[in-house]
Amino acid sequence: MKVYDLTQKLHDDMLVYSKGTCPNIKKVANIEKDGYEETLISMYSHNGTHIDAPKHMDSKGKSLDEMEINNFLGNALLIDVNNMKKIELDYIKNFEKDILESDFIIFKSGWSKYFNKDLYYKNYPTLTKECAIYLANTSIKGIGIDMLSVDTYESNDFEIHTILFEKSKVIVENLTNLESLPEKFLFIAAPLKYDNADGSQVRAIGIVNY
Amino acid sequence: MKVYDLTQKLHDDMLVYSKGTCPNIKKVANIEKDGYEETLISMYSHNGTHIDAPKHMDSKGKSLDEMEINNFLGNALLIDVNNMKKIELDYIKNFEKDILESDFIIFKSGWSKYFNKDLYYKNYPTLTKECAIYLANTSIKGIGIDMLSVDTYESNDFEIHTILFEKSKVIVENLTNLESLPEKFLFIAAPLKYDNADGSQVRAIGIVNY
Repeated sequence: MKVYDLTQKLHDDMLVYSKGTCPNIKKVANIEKDGYEETLISMYSHNGTHIDAPKHMDSKGKSLDEMEINNFLGNALLIDVNNMKKIELDYIKNFEKDILESDFIIFKSGWSKYFNKDLYYKNYPTLTKECAIYLANTSIKGIGIDMLSVDTYESNDFEIHTILFEKSKVIVENLTNLESLPEKFLFIAAPLKYDNADGSQVRAIGIVNY
Repeated sequence: MKVYDLTQKLHDDMLVYSKGTCPNIKKVANIEKDGYEETLISMYSHNGTHIDAPKHMDSKGKSLDEMEINNFLGNALLIDVNNMKKIELDYIKNFEKDILESDFIIFKSGWSKYFNKDLYYKNYPTLTKECAIYLANTSIKGIGIDMLSVDTYESNDFEIHTILFEKSKVIVENLTNLESLPEKFLFIAAPLKYDNADGSQVRAIGIVNY
């Protein structure tokens, strides 16, 4: 069994989607004074490597706590979208047989190398509407990306999110370390368990030879 | 593949180890006003179902972010300690062959049924010193329990924690839903990734037939 950590580190000045929503992580007890260390972790539900619930943008969508645990792991197919501006349906169709046998489709753009830089917000590949509709109508549980969003940063209507959420798919954003993964692996992105969860940090992992 | 969720739900008035350290979970954006839902999650690193790093109580111990991802998953052995006051070495030795082949030893006391009740703090089974020393000297990665702590709630020196931490074992506390698990399964308890992590909430899961 080989395990890959696909997670960006949380810290107070990390790159986040919206200004003013960085995590705030502070030590509140230490061994010398208290006999133990403890940390108060405050973070927005979409900071860092996280999972979006359908409820994030679809008022009729499920929250993460309303979904069974097996929605958060399964067989993943890695698709290379390096150097693409748009992820087109024609390209995705090349992988149709494997897509139909997969629980998660993970798009590897290489964009994670720009995490914590301004470039991370710009010109990353996004799904076309046709491609999103196609994937939404398969039996996958969700998609994962090593980028900021499945929509462009300039999007106001979050069309791609909406298409996926309407079909109860989850979206895992800001993955990293996809370069060394093989094409197929077991993907796990299990969220924190809280009421009405619109999103949650995950420690995303890939497992090979399990 | 069958997946078991072994995690207590986080909420603002949940049972916690120390008074005044409950999580604070609040909605900060909603679809009608903002176009999306978002939540600010504030929690102490040892609330709910969580993993303790050796650094939690051992100043020379590793923090979770200093440990490779494969320290947080592996083959687990479930040992029934229902109706015990002390988990004795003689009893544990009955499972020696399986313990030596396991990554995690998970103790099933049934105590999780008292979670959020005062009884949860009292009279749960704890490891004897001899038993802790024995386990600390095996090659396991850590232990898991469906109880508050590996030490009694009245403990001031946290002797059992310390014995395990000195040998770089991790401890997963406040597990639940162990009743339906088989004796052997794949256990995953992957923490949030932050600097100097003394502990972290986990979405603990068990996988059978993987």
